[in-house]
Amino acid sequence: MKRSFIREILESIDEETISFAGGLPNSNLFPIQDLRNATLKILDNPKVYQYTISNGINELREQIAKRYTKEGFPTTKDNILITTGSQQAMYILAKFFENKEITIEEPSYLGAMNIFRLNNLKMDGVKLEDDGINIEGFEKSFKNSKLAYLIPDFQNPSATTYSEEKREEISKIVEKYDGVLIEDSPYSELFFEKKMAYISAKLPKNSFHLGSFSKTLVPSYRIGWIRADEQKIKSLMIIKESIDLHSSGFVQYILAEYLKDEAKYEKHLQSIRDDYKVKADYFSEQLNLIIPEFKHQKPKGGMFLYGSFKDKIDTFALIEKCLKKKVVYVPGNQFYIDKIPNSEIRFNYTHSSFEQIEKGIKLIKSCL
Amino acid sequence: MKRSFIREILESIDEETISFAGGLPNSNLFPIQDLRNATLKILDNPKVYQYTISNGINELREQIAKRYTKEGFPTTKDNILITTGSQQAMYILAKFFENKEITIEEPSYLGAMNIFRLNNLKMDGVKLEDDGINIEGFEKSFKNSKLAYLIPDFQNPSATTYSEEKREEISKIVEKYDGVLIEDSPYSELFFEKKMAYISAKLPKNSFHLGSFSKTLVPSYRIGWIRADEQKIKSLMIIKESIDLHSSGFVQYILAEYLKDEAKYEKHLQSIRDDYKVKADYFSEQLNLIIPEFKHQKPKGGMFLYGSFKDKIDTFALIEKCLKKKVVYVPGNQFYIDKIPNSEIRFNYTHSSFEQIEKGIKLIKSCL
Repeated sequence: MKRSFIREILESIDEETISFAGGLPNSNLFPIQDLRNATLKILDNPKVYQYTISNGINELREQIAKRYTKEGFPTTKDNILITTGSQQAMYILAKFFENKEITIEEPSYLGAMNIFRLNNLKMDGVKLEDDGINIEGFEKSFKNSKLAYLIPDFQNPSATTYSEEKREEISKIVEKYDGVLIEDSPYSELFFEKKMAYISAKLPKNSFHLGSFSKTLVPSYRIGWIRADEQKIKSLMIIKESIDLHSSGFVQYILAEYLKDEAKYEKHLQSIRDDYKVKADYFSEQLNLIIPEFKHQKPKGGMFLYGSFKDKIDTFALIEKCLKKKVVYVPGNQFYIDKIPNSEIRFNYTHSSFEQIEKGIKLIKSCL
Repeated sequence: MKRSFIREILESIDEETISFAGGLPNSNLFPIQDLRNATLKILDNPKVYQYTISNGINELREQIAKRYTKEGFPTTKDNILITTGSQQAMYILAKFFENKEITIEEPSYLGAMNIFRLNNLKMDGVKLEDDGINIEGFEKSFKNSKLAYLIPDFQNPSATTYSEEKREEISKIVEKYDGVLIEDSPYSELFFEKKMAYISAKLPKNSFHLGSFSKTLVPSYRIGWIRADEQKIKSLMIIKESIDLHSSGFVQYILAEYLKDEAKYEKHLQSIRDDYKVKADYFSEQLNLIIPEFKHQKPKGGMFLYGSFKDKIDTFALIEKCLKKKVVYVPGNQFYIDKIPNSEIRFNYTHSSFEQIEKGIKLIKSCL
């Protein structure tokens, strides 16, 4: 069993290294003042320090349910299971479906793939195209697996967003074979133009929808959730309970308090979107200027920019040179099941300053 | 797969019910003022909100290591893995040893048994005696399993504490067969007379020692840890990372800040010991007065009082009557692998007031 490449890099690089690896949100955007106020409000209540229920505190589940309902996806607190980050949501589902087959996008999220391996799920990769997963390939695979893991909004790593048509087609295929969709949505709120409707909203009984506050508020609270049919939530709760009894109650109370002011949260989300859009545009421009041979699309949301060199360049081999020059990214092969080296790269653009972006891209250029 | 009996009860009972079930610490003893101060000190630092490393923040691991070293068990931060409660420590180990055999005490901790089942470990139960596990039975079982899960200090559920002799014998057997001991120590600090040396201290390479702040500070932070050989910690980290990337960084920073003042923490621990001792004594006295036919030993630490009716009484069947009268406990059969009804009961004495203790015991008496 190998450790996550990204986390190994994160833990080994020094402070001087410019990191386009990882998925670190920009800490300058953390709403520290507002979280401080929320913390102060709950800090003296003994109940926030005691054990709580495994599915998560009512107040927080209600807030999350409310947001879904508002967006046209009717949801109550009984449809929500609070998890220790959406990483744990994935782990719980992988444990629930252990030893089964699962259809995934290629490229796909590294962390999910590691979890699937650890729980002995057999992954079947289907090509991800510019407007979402290849539909013929998806149906062929899903017919057997009846289980899929997709990231339809600003996918990690590819930044791909599914078209309206593909969302519709996927929901029909899932229904046709009475299978299950795991829809991972950590970046859905980080749109630069518009928010797309969740595929799960068309499949309320046949879906697990995964959300997280790690990218929209702060990662260190480690609070994410699963939205699913009430019966499914009850089944997952047994696994959740075994893993850690419940996620930190203290931070759940802080979050529930913070989320009471919906307008404030909306304003905060908009500030992230604005900041990330400027960064994404700048990153894309600098790439076009400095490394025009790196083909990519300008991201429409999320935290990543993905692309490929026109010519064959082993980006996995290149990383060693780059590390010496003190710049780092994640090579594309990490996001494929077989990990065969390719010419692709995933860049995170949210964590670096404009100066670091320009300098980092120039350093990579000097390694080519 | 069934849910934990205890957590099901905890979630179903109403506010009026007197609960001797669960393992809730007394929330009146939470050092809220000092935790508030620690929180205020870290609250404005952006780094406490960002992702952190999977094994836990250095500052907290150093504090924990220091305590071990002080007690004669040389430990560095590299021997420590921070977990989301010691429940998760157990889960990580169960995943690490999945499909293996494991020697456990009978009765044993319900939560651990559920985790072992979930990860397909084959449990072999050995009788727990007044001074620790039966040694002949332990050697016979351990010879095959080479893996044991024991709770030597104020065991849950039995309150048993291992004698010096049995600790020595067990460490010799573990060494003889070059096996591994998982030593679960959530209650070790809650002694009424003296603290015993950990068995793991005699087996630094062949042990996993599990600790938690849930019983000594507050449960809702969900912070526990595993102490082990550095190589073992590295292996476990891969699983930890898959499960939730890392435990809440925010609360780790609060804890590390709080623990800086060692004298204050010691004083706090002493206040818990004093309070729980009085409660344990009172609970035992009331039992002797009201239900003299319930045989038990006065606890010497921890959170539970365990015993058995002289005559054959099905304490599992009795619970239904008790629930109607609004009092609840955990029937002894829950702590056995086969769950065959018996005459034993586990009482938690830390969470109830003196009035509730007297009233609750009288209510149980009325159900007999």
